[in-house]
Amino acid sequence: MQSDAKKTGLLSIVSTGPGNTQQLTPAALKAIAKAEYIIGNNVYIDLIRPLITGKEVVKSPMGEEVNRAQMALDLAASHRVAMVSGGDAGVYGMASIVLEVAERTQSEVLVEVIPGVTAATAAASRLGSPLSGDYVTLSLSDLLTPWEVIEERLDLASRMGVPVAIYNPRSRGRPHNLDTAIAVIGRHRGDETPVGVVRNAYRPGEEVHVMTLAELRADTSPIDMHSIVIIGGIESRIWKVGDDVRGIITPRGYHRKYVY
Amino acid sequence: MQSDAKKTGLLSIVSTGPGNTQQLTPAALKAIAKAEYIIGNNVYIDLIRPLITGKEVVKSPMGEEVNRAQMALDLAASHRVAMVSGGDAGVYGMASIVLEVAERTQSEVLVEVIPGVTAATAAASRLGSPLSGDYVTLSLSDLLTPWEVIEERLDLASRMGVPVAIYNPRSRGRPHNLDTAIAVIGRHRGDETPVGVVRNAYRPGEEVHVMTLAELRADTSPIDMHSIVIIGGIESRIWKVGDDVRGIITPRGYHRKYVY
Repeated sequence: MQSDAKKTGLLSIVSTGPGNTQQLTPAALKAIAKAEYIIGNNVYIDLIRPLITGKEVVKSPMGEEVNRAQMALDLAASHRVAMVSGGDAGVYGMASIVLEVAERTQSEVLVEVIPGVTAATAAASRLGSPLSGDYVTLSLSDLLTPWEVIEERLDLASRMGVPVAIYNPRSRGRPHNLDTAIAVIGRHRGDETPVGVVRNAYRPGEEVHVMTLAELRADTSPIDMHSIVIIGGIESRIWKVGDDVRGIITPRGYHRKYVY
Repeated sequence: MQSDAKKTGLLSIVSTGPGNTQQLTPAALKAIAKAEYIIGNNVYIDLIRPLITGKEVVKSPMGEEVNRAQMALDLAASHRVAMVSGGDAGVYGMASIVLEVAERTQSEVLVEVIPGVTAATAAASRLGSPLSGDYVTLSLSDLLTPWEVIEERLDLASRMGVPVAIYNPRSRGRPHNLDTAIAVIGRHRGDETPVGVVRNAYRPGEEVHVMTLAELRADTSPIDMHSIVIIGGIESRIWKVGDDVRGIITPRGYHRKYVY
């Protein structure tokens, strides 16, 4: 009579990568396949639609993350639940808020995080090798972080001289954050700094643009909230074969060690 | 008679993730399956051994990256070649050196980079959600980057207040870099700062340790070159249920926006 009480649940926070079923790991696919409930925001649920036929799907709009986390924990007390989150769930994804709610409620529910291809490296792969080594990951969204904090971080990141991968470079509510960010970066990086913009990496409508910081300053039109902007470091350069632009290379330093 | 000359090659630089076949994407698996030649260093070749039966395998030792890149480009002029690289190939991996050699030789060979689960987020997933948002990726290896540059970057990264994911925290040749790095971080972070150490993430012999910066300073013994060290940001905290340590949470800032 107590079979229900004995049933052990599991909440898998599943990273779905850039949003193409070719870019989820087998571990992520398995967690989705085994789940009784799938929870996520509408955008990510739609991207993995082919994988979830016949499952109980709980959609939830952007902005409802706290409720979604609580709902997932409640269901996972006695069911297998997959909370899906784009890119890597541990980077601007659902992992932190789920664990914050689990901590506050001192939840004993089993929770696992399944890593995935994060948006910065997905975008980088389309540009050649713009990151290569040390780099900074930074979001321009001031929804959860005060703008002064973002600006201070961006200034320090630019002083580091390494590439900076910018998430949420522009949204409808904050159209001018990117212009301000470009001005901050410009204090420490020259006009010729290579910049890569990747919109909808590995998704329908993918666009890849290579330009300079000066060109970005003059025209930010290809950039929206589905884009990642990679600002090159002080050693980054545009990779050309003849006059043909192939991408961006940030050298790792082999030229300092080897003659080649 | 000219069939060989017409044969078009392709060099796929394939990210193999943490080194467990459950953590490669279908796109990576497909590129490996289609390749006639597999090139990589011994460690990564061995980790994907089950996937490459019957293929021509060109192993190459660590330290021979420039030769390996040239060999891959030569073969890929007329064959399908997969260059395998651990984690994400665009982060401390083989993508940059292959493209540097392609640029120098003005190679027309088709090259694609297939992204993967990068070591920072693989390690983070074992610790709960220590990165969550903005963070810095930094290597302590001074093989290709002068130590003064690394130290300056680490100082600026610590001042940003965000988590720092440290690659190559210790190697046989440079046993004291980590102690120096801890001293630099200590200028800007308190003794209670949470630190996560993940050794061999998703590989045999995996270890996960949660400690404070003071504890790390006193005992760095669990750390070797197969480890990632995540230094918490100013808002990071150790996640406990009762007295049981579950991991590290870096909040994203929902507490500033919502009551929950």
